[in-house]
Amino acid sequence: MEDLRYFNERRTVRAYSSRHIDESLLTGLIETATHAPTTGNMQLYSVVVTRDIEMKRRLSPAHFDQPSVMSADAVLTFCADFNRFVTWCEHRDAVPGYGNFQAFMWAVQDTMIFAQQFVTLAELSGLGTCYLGTTTYNAPRIADVLSLPKMVVPVTTVTVGYPSSIPRMSDRLPVGSIIHVESYHGYDDGRIDAAYAGKEARADSARFIAENNKKTLAQVFTDVRYPKADNELFSNVYRDFIRRAGFDI
Amino acid sequence: MEDLRYFNERRTVRAYSSRHIDESLLTGLIETATHAPTTGNMQLYSVVVTRDIEMKRRLSPAHFDQPSVMSADAVLTFCADFNRFVTWCEHRDAVPGYGNFQAFMWAVQDTMIFAQQFVTLAELSGLGTCYLGTTTYNAPRIADVLSLPKMVVPVTTVTVGYPSSIPRMSDRLPVGSIIHVESYHGYDDGRIDAAYAGKEARADSARFIAENNKKTLAQVFTDVRYPKADNELFSNVYRDFIRRAGFDI
Repeated sequence: MEDLRYFNERRTVRAYSSRHIDESLLTGLIETATHAPTTGNMQLYSVVVTRDIEMKRRLSPAHFDQPSVMSADAVLTFCADFNRFVTWCEHRDAVPGYGNFQAFMWAVQDTMIFAQQFVTLAELSGLGTCYLGTTTYNAPRIADVLSLPKMVVPVTTVTVGYPSSIPRMSDRLPVGSIIHVESYHGYDDGRIDAAYAGKEARADSARFIAENNKKTLAQVFTDVRYPKADNELFSNVYRDFIRRAGFDI
Repeated sequence: MEDLRYFNERRTVRAYSSRHIDESLLTGLIETATHAPTTGNMQLYSVVVTRDIEMKRRLSPAHFDQPSVMSADAVLTFCADFNRFVTWCEHRDAVPGYGNFQAFMWAVQDTMIFAQQFVTLAELSGLGTCYLGTTTYNAPRIADVLSLPKMVVPVTTVTVGYPSSIPRMSDRLPVGSIIHVESYHGYDDGRIDAAYAGKEARADSARFIAENNKKTLAQVFTDVRYPKADNELFSNVYRDFIRRAGFDI
């Protein structure tokens, strides 16, 4: 068995030094990541690489100006892409039937597998990475900046650079609370307490609760970080974008 | 930089020996995989581990009886899971707003990142793995077999076991055809030919075309492997299932 220490100690890096990532290193990591599994070997993804400072400035608002966008040497927008595959079909006397929910989900899965393989490879090479979940919030703006055509949907963004410092590791739930043996076990009071006790006991959790004037850590998520009204608003924005892109989801 | 040879040489394994995977190894790999990135550290996933022979028999038809299900020592169903998080909110005086498309997509992303991290760890440990895309086709049946509750949606399945032989590597498109520098480049005739020439020149492509009595490799995909009518049928099945599970997608 290989040494899996990196995987047990990895952490997300949001602040980067000014050190340049060699072009051939970055391309090599992307190329290696393409060997990750993909649905029917269709490779239903593309990656748009943003390194130009002006292009980063244009992307930044789509990510609510999170500082990692401007700080990162490279910003990679990973897209579910049926444009290339469908164009190939049309050039080869084949009639594609991929403007639907299944096809969209295959492409999302391919894209996430590819993105995560890239993240692992980048981190193993000494780079720091951070996923930006804002990609699904502001897909229309991202698509506009990056000139995305039909059948191409931004799914996630990864900022990449050499770390300027090593942040702390994030906590995780006990593994027993996410594994189900043979069939799904429900979460009664005891199981919920067992899953979340460690997280709730953390000093930073107490700080989040106090700073946001809430009573529980869960309220920080439901009322501040991911409130229902925002989730529903951005659901409509993303769904409409995906439909306009050509997927009848 | 670490030795990335494994990542350049990896291959999907569908046939397994009878060798048993040590329980602690499997759990350890799953635990290590939880250190992969996750949306807002919510860990919106669960994994159901199927090792019992009778449970495998019940799952097998949901995967169209692909032999890897019965051959694998373990079958892992990776699920997008808001059940645990929402139950926690409800136990902590917080009102969740996650029955929507955005929340579903976060959970799908978390699930795929987690699944791919597990696949990498399993392969680095000498195990073979295979993703089963049939999971999105037959989610209702899988949910029934595994007793999945509301807010839990099967997204992908990974079969795991020690390889009985080492299969060939899959080909991939040239990396230049999936990278876009600063903005998306369209696919004109020349770019399509450049992307697919290698694949189309392969001996197995010629064999697929001949066996299926088609004129082009693209027709093997559109007419045989992933035809429109199937994609639309299973789109409806999956979308309806997700809505019944509690996500207004």
